[in-house]
Amino acid sequence: MPKSVYHVGLVGITGYAGMELARLLAQHPSMRLTMACSRAESGKRLGSYYPFLETLPGCDVCISSFNADEAAKSLDLVFLAVPAGTAFTIAPDLLAKGVKVVDFSADFRIHEQAVYETWYKQTHTAPHLLSKAVYGLPERYAKEIQKADLVANPGCYPTSIILGLAPALQHHCIQANTIVIDAKSGTTGAGRKASVANLFCEVSDTFRAYGLVSHRHTPEIEQELGLLAKTPLTVQFSPHLVPMNRGILSTIYADLADPSLTLDTIHQIYSDAWANEPWIRVLPKGRLPETRFVRGSMFCDIGLAVDPRTKRLIVVSVIDNLCRGAAGQALANANLMLGLPVDTGLANTAPLF
Amino acid sequence: MPKSVYHVGLVGITGYAGMELARLLAQHPSMRLTMACSRAESGKRLGSYYPFLETLPGCDVCISSFNADEAAKSLDLVFLAVPAGTAFTIAPDLLAKGVKVVDFSADFRIHEQAVYETWYKQTHTAPHLLSKAVYGLPERYAKEIQKADLVANPGCYPTSIILGLAPALQHHCIQANTIVIDAKSGTTGAGRKASVANLFCEVSDTFRAYGLVSHRHTPEIEQELGLLAKTPLTVQFSPHLVPMNRGILSTIYADLADPSLTLDTIHQIYSDAWANEPWIRVLPKGRLPETRFVRGSMFCDIGLAVDPRTKRLIVVSVIDNLCRGAAGQALANANLMLGLPVDTGLANTAPLF
Amino acid sequence: MPKSVYHVGLVGITGYAGMELARLLAQHPSMRLTMACSRAESGKRLGSYYPFLETLPGCDVCISSFNADEAAKSLDLVFLAVPAGTAFTIAPDLLAKGVKVVDFSADFRIHEQAVYETWYKQTHTAPHLLSKAVYGLPERYAKEIQKADLVANPGCYPTSIILGLAPALQHHCIQANTIVIDAKSGTTGAGRKASVANLFCEVSDTFRAYGLVSHRHTPEIEQELGLLAKTPLTVQFSPHLVPMNRGILSTIYADLADPSLTLDTIHQIYSDAWANEPWIRVLPKGRLPETRFVRGSMFCDIGLAVDPRTKRLIVVSVIDNLCRGAAGQALANANLMLGLPVDTGLANTAPLF
Amino acid sequence: MPKSVYHVGLVGITGYAGMELARLLAQHPSMRLTMACSRAESGKRLGSYYPFLETLPGCDVCISSFNADEAAKSLDLVFLAVPAGTAFTIAPDLLAKGVKVVDFSADFRIHEQAVYETWYKQTHTAPHLLSKAVYGLPERYAKEIQKADLVANPGCYPTSIILGLAPALQHHCIQANTIVIDAKSGTTGAGRKASVANLFCEVSDTFRAYGLVSHRHTPEIEQELGLLAKTPLTVQFSPHLVPMNRGILSTIYADLADPSLTLDTIHQIYSDAWANEPWIRVLPKGRLPETRFVRGSMFCDIGLAVDPRTKRLIVVSVIDNLCRGAAGQALANANLMLGLPVDTGLANTAPLF
Repeated sequence: MPKSVYHVGLVGITGYAGMELARLLAQHPSMRLTMACSRAESGKRLGSYYPFLETLPGCDVCISSFNADEAAKSLDLVFLAVPAGTAFTIAPDLLAKGVKVVDFSADFRIHEQAVYETWYKQTHTAPHLLSKAVYGLPERYAKEIQKADLVANPGCYPTSIILGLAPALQHHCIQANTIVIDAKSGTTGAGRKASVANLFCEVSDTFRAYGLVSHRHTPEIEQELGLLAKTPLTVQFSPHLVPMNRGILSTIYADLADPSLTLDTIHQIYSDAWANEPWIRVLPKGRLPETRFVRGSMFCDIGLAVDPRTKRLIVVSVIDNLCRGAAGQALANANLMLGLPVDTGLANTAPLF
Repeated sequence: MPKSVYHVGLVGITGYAGMELARLLAQHPSMRLTMACSRAESGKRLGSYYPFLETLPGCDVCISSFNADEAAKSLDLVFLAVPAGTAFTIAPDLLAKGVKVVDFSADFRIHEQAVYETWYKQTHTAPHLLSKAVYGLPERYAKEIQKADLVANPGCYPTSIILGLAPALQHHCIQANTIVIDAKSGTTGAGRKASVANLFCEVSDTFRAYGLVSHRHTPEIEQELGLLAKTPLTVQFSPHLVPMNRGILSTIYADLADPSLTLDTIHQIYSDAWANEPWIRVLPKGRLPETRFVRGSMFCDIGLAVDPRTKRLIVVSVIDNLCRGAAGQALANANLMLGLPVDTGLANTAPLF
Repeated sequence: MPKSVYHVGLVGITGYAGMELARLLAQHPSMRLTMACSRAESGKRLGSYYPFLETLPGCDVCISSFNADEAAKSLDLVFLAVPAGTAFTIAPDLLAKGVKVVDFSADFRIHEQAVYETWYKQTHTAPHLLSKAVYGLPERYAKEIQKADLVANPGCYPTSIILGLAPALQHHCIQANTIVIDAKSGTTGAGRKASVANLFCEVSDTFRAYGLVSHRHTPEIEQELGLLAKTPLTVQFSPHLVPMNRGILSTIYADLADPSLTLDTIHQIYSDAWANEPWIRVLPKGRLPETRFVRGSMFCDIGLAVDPRTKRLIVVSVIDNLCRGAAGQALANANLMLGLPVDTGLANTAPLF
Repeated sequence: MPKSVYHVGLVGITGYAGMELARLLAQHPSMRLTMACSRAESGKRLGSYYPFLETLPGCDVCISSFNADEAAKSLDLVFLAVPAGTAFTIAPDLLAKGVKVVDFSADFRIHEQAVYETWYKQTHTAPHLLSKAVYGLPERYAKEIQKADLVANPGCYPTSIILGLAPALQHHCIQANTIVIDAKSGTTGAGRKASVANLFCEVSDTFRAYGLVSHRHTPEIEQELGLLAKTPLTVQFSPHLVPMNRGILSTIYADLADPSLTLDTIHQIYSDAWANEPWIRVLPKGRLPETRFVRGSMFCDIGLAVDPRTKRLIVVSVIDNLCRGAAGQALANANLMLGLPVDTGLANTAPLF
């Protein structure tokens, strides 16, 4: 029987994903943030550290250093918003003590240990959990998430890309090995660490690519797209930094599987595929999505084009990288893991234009 | 007895205030937007015109030209988000037909017809309503608003300024005729009309003052501050345009009434004055507010400084110009007018950092 | 013999390209802007219309409606910064009267009349000039430009793309029909017409694609890339709007012609190809360009990557869309047409970080 | 006799002021940057550290740690772009070795040692130089600067404020002790140190005040305004941070000395006062300046308003904080110190709109 209120903890509150989760938990009817951890900010009230939360639920929590025993005493679930390489040192202990875990990092997303270690350049110290962890994309794995103790929350780019390509791959509209993904992210995606490269004046009024041919989200994208296509595949993935705070827009190119495929057909396939998913909005033919239309929400808006000259499908997929691409999706996963409706605390949220 | 659902209309949906109200109504548990009016966009679905609202409550409303008889048939209340000079041509008819009105414009804010006509440079055609209209600042006039049929929703700048100065004036901390208000607004404040001056490239990476010594919010500010001070007064009001979307920050200077007044004393006066108002947050001494900490919310954050060298009080007051400074405040007023708790549909909203 | 000062005119001063040209002419040692035309702003001093130019050379020119006879009396050359479809109605008369013309529009860029008419959806009324016009990309056609009376100034996107792909195509590094161009432009690229879609609040903090599979720069790109490849080719071209003022970044993907080609080889080919072109900077391996590093300048910065997994070349090419992509390039062309060094008035200009 | 080329050094290249000076020196006809110092970046080529400078004059300088003996061997003048408290440890040695110094910091701006030490909270170790240093505002002290070996380059805020108030104070238009300065700066003013507070996402789409009643530019402003007024005075100075890169706009309020003073009179006084100063543009009555109109230039644009209701003068003064407010002004000072025309390398520079 579901409790009326679940107590949850958040390890890593100083990053943008942690900040977003604190925002969402302040509005959640049946989860209460009772432990917020950060070594650097330990001792401060959460509402003092994040003035926008002041007077809201959770603001009086005192930031503390993480302690697994303390967590196990009172918490139903812990969100780990810590870097890859740290999560796999924390999660096993929590799970052993009976606390469910939603991990924001990549530590449990990649099923193959070797693939993880190649791309993340470190040894995985909890590989036995890789087969237990569920990839936390509700539209794909809701049933598995409901039963899971450990959920690997998807990366922001992969979320936009997998949702954007799933129908095309499942229905064999495209040639799996021709996928080129040109993705653009708001600057919250670059994290909240002090760095010259991300100062306002280094990002404002400019545009740049980064991580070409080497971004760590690549194997995660290939794993999930390969499962959809039922065949291993390789993608081109090129991220870019946009002078805006929130949002990801992925422009995805792929050769049509059959050059006679039309926009009408593919649009119908997408509309049918996502008909029962309230968070996915397939736009009418001829319209393209914008990141502002999903700001602060769980929506993934998808626009489609077919080029009759080049015989390519172009998918434009947008999400809010912090809400749908991180904290909101983590909350949706936690809802499922705790027996709540997936959209508890997330329903009816109009994007903040 | 309150209804479980009230039907409301919105005349003027194409501006930013109307857009924000549509956003808020999509999340309101007991108001339903059933009429949305705009001559220019008549015939479109609201969700098609505003893609961010698609699939949310209200999105299926068909935009129509305003018709008072139609409104009277089905609506409990109408929001007028039309320019000054238009509202006083619409409101009388609605009121006569028994429909409550919340007007976003200045048409019913100024008690003295002559003052209105001087600053707004037009003849008021419904002056008989001026004494019936209530100035819709809930922290000041909640009781009167509850009984009102016509509420004049305050201007965005005045809201930030009145809330920022009320305790200082009521408790005689400052000399009433020394007030200098240097206010800064996000660009949604400039409206959503097509104009070269407000194109992205004309506003981005630049800063400008406008409306010096002549801005129309001046008499409204002076009226309400005069009522607080219990004496007529004159203020210097200088608005500026900030290259950001939302938010107003008002920096307010006034000579101390008594040069021995300290920050400690004034901070205590403010804290006491606003202690029971959940939407007003007086910051701890030494901290200053930022517009991002109130984004999309009803909060008014207030920071205080006293300069021992110049014997001046400096108040820094911030609000979200669209939510607290327009649509959110209108909704709070409508809540009161319909017998609902003032924060229905507005409670617990964490600002979108 | 070159004159010491040439008199030039500018038709269409109200757009961003015209504005940029006025800026550059104010610093040019041997051209003087003596005629500035705009029907809408006729009668104003240029320095009053553009306050940033006040007190600089050219600021006292009185804006006038265009008159070909007046132009012919005193001008050596006229810049046409008018829309496609207007230029071909003005240029023939000027040329007939002996005035050289640099046209910013697409009217004389496309060699094939039918191609122009298909993409621009209008009948070309001066097709006899198509073979006389020279495509004004100095690195490609300097000699032809020196002899030309009519130069078609390249489009902003095409400039970044042609310069970015020329060595790869000329040296057969890539498969010509696999080119995917994902381009991103600052908002000056959207023009200076009053429109809701380009208001600050509609562009700030958001990102969008536009013109997928139909953008009019496509045939121009294909024409010039085809000439480089010595074979007709088809490209995928997808433009996006960035919330910044200036700059274009094109991310260009193409399959390697030979999967064994390495970054070392291709980087050497690029470095050699552009070694004598001072405005083109091929970045060291491992570095990627940013639009801010070329702001307000004639530079085209090029970064290269080769993906050993996908066997693709990725070229990232950036320019300032207003200077290199429009007015600065027009000025370089005018320099050549008038017998001046190509970089007169453009030399040594450090980008404004 | 002036040399044809002067060799200059720059200590502190990693900040925005140093970066701007490197930009300007790349375009200077008779100064050559031959020493660029930074401990942290020592060993890199300047063009590699600042990609926007690549291929321009100075780009091949190797960044080094500062060494006074090396400097003395080859340099005519050194620019110190180091923090207050460091400059007074470097300048004496350079001066003793015969090298002229332009210091960007506050170390030599304040004539009274005690005032400096109170506001800057440190002991001045070279107080004997305070009387030798000249305050480097060319419009005020050109003659003294020409003879100086040590010039204290003015602060950015003070530059905008002194130029904005000089005529009003010299001609007794205002009451000296009523001055309220509400200033707004672009984020380059906050420096280029890595810090969370100045990350893009912490500055974008928000607005804040800082340093109320305590900003260190206050005594510098009071010193220079007092000299203009020929009486000591106290000002209210409140800086704010704008989400833009460059520019300062100061809105300055003061009570009229004589309530019958009109805008006509004061505008004439300003126009006459600055008639021979090409870098100061007094705007026509009714127009207000914007920071974009001076971007990257030496201009100070001034707008004026007189409020007949409150009997106050309002001056709006804008500059580019990096060029006029730091590096450009330093270069103008260096020009004068080396016997060159003040605007060498700075003339005719059209602001980059």
